[in-house]
Amino acid sequence: MKIAVINGPNLNLLGRRRPEIYGTETLADTISDVRNRFPEVEIVDFQSNDEGRLVDAVQTFGFDPEITGIVLNPGAYSHYSLAIADAVEAIPAPVVEVHISNIHAREDFRHTSVTARNAKAVIAGCGRLGYQLAVDYLMRING
Amino acid sequence: MKIAVINGPNLNLLGRRRPEIYGTETLADTISDVRNRFPEVEIVDFQSNDEGRLVDAVQTFGFDPEITGIVLNPGAYSHYSLAIADAVEAIPAPVVEVHISNIHAREDFRHTSVTARNAKAVIAGCGRLGYQLAVDYLMRING
Amino acid sequence: MKIAVINGPNLNLLGRRRPEIYGTETLADTISDVRNRFPEVEIVDFQSNDEGRLVDAVQTFGFDPEITGIVLNPGAYSHYSLAIADAVEAIPAPVVEVHISNIHAREDFRHTSVTARNAKAVIAGCGRLGYQLAVDYLMRING
Amino acid sequence: MKIAVINGPNLNLLGRRRPEIYGTETLADTISDVRNRFPEVEIVDFQSNDEGRLVDAVQTFGFDPEITGIVLNPGAYSHYSLAIADAVEAIPAPVVEVHISNIHAREDFRHTSVTARNAKAVIAGCGRLGYQLAVDYLMRING
Amino acid sequence: MKIAVINGPNLNLLGRRRPEIYGTETLADTISDVRNRFPEVEIVDFQSNDEGRLVDAVQTFGFDPEITGIVLNPGAYSHYSLAIADAVEAIPAPVVEVHISNIHAREDFRHTSVTARNAKAVIAGCGRLGYQLAVDYLMRING
Amino acid sequence: MKIAVINGPNLNLLGRRRPEIYGTETLADTISDVRNRFPEVEIVDFQSNDEGRLVDAVQTFGFDPEITGIVLNPGAYSHYSLAIADAVEAIPAPVVEVHISNIHAREDFRHTSVTARNAKAVIAGCGRLGYQLAVDYLMRING
Amino acid sequence: MKIAVINGPNLNLLGRRRPEIYGTETLADTISDVRNRFPEVEIVDFQSNDEGRLVDAVQTFGFDPEITGIVLNPGAYSHYSLAIADAVEAIPAPVVEVHISNIHAREDFRHTSVTARNAKAVIAGCGRLGYQLAVDYLMRING
Amino acid sequence: MKIAVINGPNLNLLGRRRPEIYGTETLADTISDVRNRFPEVEIVDFQSNDEGRLVDAVQTFGFDPEITGIVLNPGAYSHYSLAIADAVEAIPAPVVEVHISNIHAREDFRHTSVTARNAKAVIAGCGRLGYQLAVDYLMRING
Amino acid sequence: MKIAVINGPNLNLLGRRRPEIYGTETLADTISDVRNRFPEVEIVDFQSNDEGRLVDAVQTFGFDPEITGIVLNPGAYSHYSLAIADAVEAIPAPVVEVHISNIHAREDFRHTSVTARNAKAVIAGCGRLGYQLAVDYLMRING
Amino acid sequence: MKIAVINGPNLNLLGRRRPEIYGTETLADTISDVRNRFPEVEIVDFQSNDEGRLVDAVQTFGFDPEITGIVLNPGAYSHYSLAIADAVEAIPAPVVEVHISNIHAREDFRHTSVTARNAKAVIAGCGRLGYQLAVDYLMRING
Amino acid sequence: MKIAVINGPNLNLLGRRRPEIYGTETLADTISDVRNRFPEVEIVDFQSNDEGRLVDAVQTFGFDPEITGIVLNPGAYSHYSLAIADAVEAIPAPVVEVHISNIHAREDFRHTSVTARNAKAVIAGCGRLGYQLAVDYLMRING
Amino acid sequence: MKIAVINGPNLNLLGRRRPEIYGTETLADTISDVRNRFPEVEIVDFQSNDEGRLVDAVQTFGFDPEITGIVLNPGAYSHYSLAIADAVEAIPAPVVEVHISNIHAREDFRHTSVTARNAKAVIAGCGRLGYQLAVDYLMRING
Repeated sequence: MKIAVINGPNLNLLGRRRPEIYGTETLADTISDVRNRFPEVEIVDFQSNDEGRLVDAVQTFGFDPEITGIVLNPGAYSHYSLAIADAVEAIPAPVVEVHISNIHAREDFRHTSVTARNAKAVIAGCGRLGYQLAVDYLMRING
Repeated sequence: MKIAVINGPNLNLLGRRRPEIYGTETLADTISDVRNRFPEVEIVDFQSNDEGRLVDAVQTFGFDPEITGIVLNPGAYSHYSLAIADAVEAIPAPVVEVHISNIHAREDFRHTSVTARNAKAVIAGCGRLGYQLAVDYLMRING
Repeated sequence: MKIAVINGPNLNLLGRRRPEIYGTETLADTISDVRNRFPEVEIVDFQSNDEGRLVDAVQTFGFDPEITGIVLNPGAYSHYSLAIADAVEAIPAPVVEVHISNIHAREDFRHTSVTARNAKAVIAGCGRLGYQLAVDYLMRING
Repeated sequence: MKIAVINGPNLNLLGRRRPEIYGTETLADTISDVRNRFPEVEIVDFQSNDEGRLVDAVQTFGFDPEITGIVLNPGAYSHYSLAIADAVEAIPAPVVEVHISNIHAREDFRHTSVTARNAKAVIAGCGRLGYQLAVDYLMRING
Repeated sequence: MKIAVINGPNLNLLGRRRPEIYGTETLADTISDVRNRFPEVEIVDFQSNDEGRLVDAVQTFGFDPEITGIVLNPGAYSHYSLAIADAVEAIPAPVVEVHISNIHAREDFRHTSVTARNAKAVIAGCGRLGYQLAVDYLMRING
Repeated sequence: MKIAVINGPNLNLLGRRRPEIYGTETLADTISDVRNRFPEVEIVDFQSNDEGRLVDAVQTFGFDPEITGIVLNPGAYSHYSLAIADAVEAIPAPVVEVHISNIHAREDFRHTSVTARNAKAVIAGCGRLGYQLAVDYLMRING
Repeated sequence: MKIAVINGPNLNLLGRRRPEIYGTETLADTISDVRNRFPEVEIVDFQSNDEGRLVDAVQTFGFDPEITGIVLNPGAYSHYSLAIADAVEAIPAPVVEVHISNIHAREDFRHTSVTARNAKAVIAGCGRLGYQLAVDYLMRING
Repeated sequence: MKIAVINGPNLNLLGRRRPEIYGTETLADTISDVRNRFPEVEIVDFQSNDEGRLVDAVQTFGFDPEITGIVLNPGAYSHYSLAIADAVEAIPAPVVEVHISNIHAREDFRHTSVTARNAKAVIAGCGRLGYQLAVDYLMRING
Repeated sequence: MKIAVINGPNLNLLGRRRPEIYGTETLADTISDVRNRFPEVEIVDFQSNDEGRLVDAVQTFGFDPEITGIVLNPGAYSHYSLAIADAVEAIPAPVVEVHISNIHAREDFRHTSVTARNAKAVIAGCGRLGYQLAVDYLMRING
Repeated sequence: MKIAVINGPNLNLLGRRRPEIYGTETLADTISDVRNRFPEVEIVDFQSNDEGRLVDAVQTFGFDPEITGIVLNPGAYSHYSLAIADAVEAIPAPVVEVHISNIHAREDFRHTSVTARNAKAVIAGCGRLGYQLAVDYLMRING
Repeated sequence: MKIAVINGPNLNLLGRRRPEIYGTETLADTISDVRNRFPEVEIVDFQSNDEGRLVDAVQTFGFDPEITGIVLNPGAYSHYSLAIADAVEAIPAPVVEVHISNIHAREDFRHTSVTARNAKAVIAGCGRLGYQLAVDYLMRING
Repeated sequence: MKIAVINGPNLNLLGRRRPEIYGTETLADTISDVRNRFPEVEIVDFQSNDEGRLVDAVQTFGFDPEITGIVLNPGAYSHYSLAIADAVEAIPAPVVEVHISNIHAREDFRHTSVTARNAKAVIAGCGRLGYQLAVDYLMRING
């Protein structure tokens, strides 16, 4: 089983941005934790700050018949990228949208996610564990 | 470890409402599945169609020192019950809000959850598995 | 033929609230008038000021195979009770929403009915006669 | 007793538009059904796609002392014709607004009826039977 | 000097609608009063409840080189008739919009006039005298 | 003289919720303070987290001829319970709405109170003293 | 007969501001023109850029039994000064609101006038002649 | 092949209104140009300023089995005529909505077209050539 | 103990404006009643129709170390004066905002108070007694 | 004559995304059809999922003196890319915006196109033929 | 060279209001710093809490031919004073609007400045240095 | 001292776009002018039309310990790029947002800047001099 984990803008700063809050663990650590918990799954990961390259990635992984599902954290693009939203809708692979923080508890503009409308499921506020829950979910529905 | 699972209005109809869509498994089956997967956790469950009794339940479980966390599916109350939202904010126990369907993919009024603002995390669209992911999450952050 | 008549908050005050406007006839008189006009129909009636108990009632009557249809006056809950609206959507029995006054002619917040979205029909402004029109309609479509 | 039945735009297509949905009965059939059910009432009917001619009709029938009441289906004009709304307000005859479909269950712009604000009552979603319920109501309040 | 006075929907009811409020003077009386006060002006008047015929009239009078100006009371069409508004914008003759009542003191939807955006001037709330003020103004700017 | 003090959702947590902020005095202490300051008044008190039971209480106390007035803290229901608002409007007894905190200084959704529209007066932000001010006011206007 | 003409902010710039557009005639010229046309009327005039002093003036002139009416050009305050609007509502003297330009044809925020809601009539877009029309109107309704 | 070209309010002024902008070619010239380019198509044309007559025309041409398609320029009615929109939805013939100017580049209220929601296609801003593009399109999809 | 009572626009009309409603007691009477009830408090009072002078007053009294608190009735300025709101926020003295009428029961624009956001407490609808309740409150929290 | 055809996000999926709906023809086929119909025109085409590269392309082609015009399908970027909209406004070459589907008939957020505001013309809903209509139009206005 | 520095409401509190945040330097210190940095410029300064006097000042300095430009900090009036905005538009002198704090980072109502619409430039968030930047700018464009 | 100057979409067109308005000076000239005025500062500059590369640049320069501050002109991205806004918030370096034109004086959608919310300061409307003011400011606060 192969699952793609796609991360959007500013998630490359994980561990470096406000470490007193977010901890010192990086995005690499986060992906590593996922791999350690689910050694039977091949995790392909991709990060970009660029909307267009994220659309590319969603398309590429989404049409790849070997990919069981996509874990997508679109970062701030969640709130306005109709281009990513359209890509999520277009692909056959199921997408679980993950947000590290609880977007409903933050600024008003973060309460709405346009990409989430086309995702299969959304997990928000579970911190870095959210990625593991998403993979767990994708495994079980494909189990 | 003891976790409360609180379900709101119309969730008592699970398995009976549109079985061709939601399946024939009931809320009891759902709770049972959670118990089977996490035998080490004591699951206390409660369902009501009544906003006031849900506030009561959130308060009672939320101040109970034996309760590690609450899994809350407020159903339609998510979208307007400031009374439940205030209760969630008031209690010391962490709350994970669960929605069976992806509320972001449904009618506009379901895109906003006032109770989610005060929850710790939100899991939506994972179907009945959402309850298990929520318990898994509560266990890991208390582990 | 059996029809349920469910009344929501403050309708128990009928005949007592502003009698110079609403007359001195009570809710009991209103139900009685319905029974007198349609002696061939068994009218089951229920009133509550409580949203949760109204959800319960809609569910109970709505899944009761003996019930031909429901006449529902949700009172002020019409304008915000998504919980009742979800219950109305869930049940197999047809629901006719009745309002004694013409809600379109009153305050702005009364122009929108969230429960009406899921009802089969809506009758507003016909006074206490509205209940009879609703029963008449339910009889004819089941005739 | 004499009652006017006024129908607005596109109602002349009844029976011809989407017959698999609306049936094959025409507006003429509908009026005829009303006449058959209430042989003691003289039914005058008028249909136009034109806002101005509908204002004319509301005025003419509304000030006619022989007319007991008006059954008005303003069609799409319900949602924006302040001209018809003003006419309904100006006349002494009571107006019952009828909609064949449940406007609350359709597109957002159909949830609001500006003409209904000035009508005495509104009946929506009862199909072609709505016209009969309206006449029945007008007879009873004038009885 | 020749001035056109165009009246829109329901203004034909003047003197007949709520005479205790609006008085018993009709639209004919109103036009007559204008003629009496300004005998040197030829007053052409037109009334219709029909949006299309009002557009026709605005066009016809507005391009007529003998017409010095137009006094237009669009009635309820003021608030939504972009068709009349476009006609007012298209013609070379200056238009003074008149409202008998003070539209700013009435319902919210009457606070905005889309036709007024293209008129030269607006006179509201001066009762039937408003027509005379409008003619007086048109005479002075053409004097 | 007899005055009813009705408290809504989550006010039963007073003294227990965030004691470092709200102090350690409970709702019982608050009621007791009112009784101590106004020994000549009989204070009947009622608390519920349930909207329906609050409607019941407003009705029961509001039609009780022995009740001089009602002090009502609807808690979060203030912001959406049209059912309670209708009950407040229906009863003959005057209602003073009390909020412990200054609702105008909190989240946007707390700036509007639908129940306050039908109350006689509103006192917000005076802390637990607000209840005493409300009773003082009711006594003076009935004195 | 005595009429007060009150002008608000920036109207003291008349004749000096954009003279190629507004002409070279000043506010003094405008008042003078009014006096010349209506020599039988005593015109008292007042101008201030200050909201408070305008409230004072409206009160003073509005309660002065010798004043037949007020011609008020509140300038930009029209669009937000609830204080002036309240003063206009409080006084017994009738107020005609005048705007030199057609406020409906300008920026969106100028389409709404909060002071106009309480005025008797509004004349907009007639240029400096508007003041004369307003005085003419006040004379005729007091004639 | 037979195609109907229906034009709405103020389009009869083409060539006469602001000729320095729109040129001196009339609506007749425009229709003539279409006929000249597509001599193999029978072009039936209709223009009215009247909403009702436009509804009539859409119905008549739309149900005429000889009509291959309709080119409709609803003018200002595009932005509010739900009656025309309903007619466009009701008929079997495909409708291409044409606007001479680019409505997206004009006032805000012209950005939304309610009639376009039910049309098959929309062509805006191509000037008088838009009519030819629309006919070309209708021919090709029926070719 | 010294308390400042500041009154805003149109409150100088108390007793003179609609005496059949507001009574014949003036602002001076109201202040006098406060002084009579609390002889131990020195009441300094100030009234102005001018926003700027009200800002001055709030600043002057608010930084005066002898002033225990301020009772402020900003009148219509409550609804838009961010300048007064900023002053209220800047000063160390606590401010109780008083409204004679229940602003929640009046026009929509009166439901929001921008000055109240920065006040400590708000008392509305208690009539002229509101001033006494405010002073009572300020005394008790400083007692 | 040289025309640039620029396609935005997800249009590279044409023929692959929902082939049962959009057919099996790809973007390459679509461009090829344009070239076949207009062999006298040199068609340069460019596709990217990336907003920045689309801005680059609009600039490059738009300032290229050999380019007669641009056919631009901005895909989902139409609805929010002010960056592309600014580029369209900046360049001298005329832009025709094309949408394969009728954006007015889809979700609400697709009814508004910010890029269309600066385009010369918009063609929507003509399917893949829309590209040909756009080229035809650009040829004729450069004819 | 002569430049006017105009400060609005509550800016007289600088140095006194929240000194731990804003420092202990007063408005006088701020003006003094400007004078010290630009000894070649004559700085005229004016502060008022009063909207009307600020309009007066903008007019007086704005038409003074000796004044090169105006530095204006309208304080809270920025967000609603259309009277000041109109004055800024009317005068020939260029106006630079200065805000000490970054208004975009504060409450929502501070994100919009109606006075800024008519200013030449806006400098916000540079603290007291903003005044110097504004003077520097005015000098350079007049240099 | 080292300062980064980052420019967003379409700013590469400076000097080429509407030279009659913006002049013939290019972005290179603008940067050059900054360097000439502040020879003691090392200016690093970067321009891209791409949102993602701008996020990259903000991150790279923002975490570079040698960078004293960033001057950022996000162009049209100011109004919707939450991704850039998040990057600005994440970095330790202070950011001054610069706009060449006064965004408050342009279209409505340009009045709001989401990136400005996280910037330290904003300078708009000072033309190309704005860059120099921003550098001057960054030098002084780091001086």
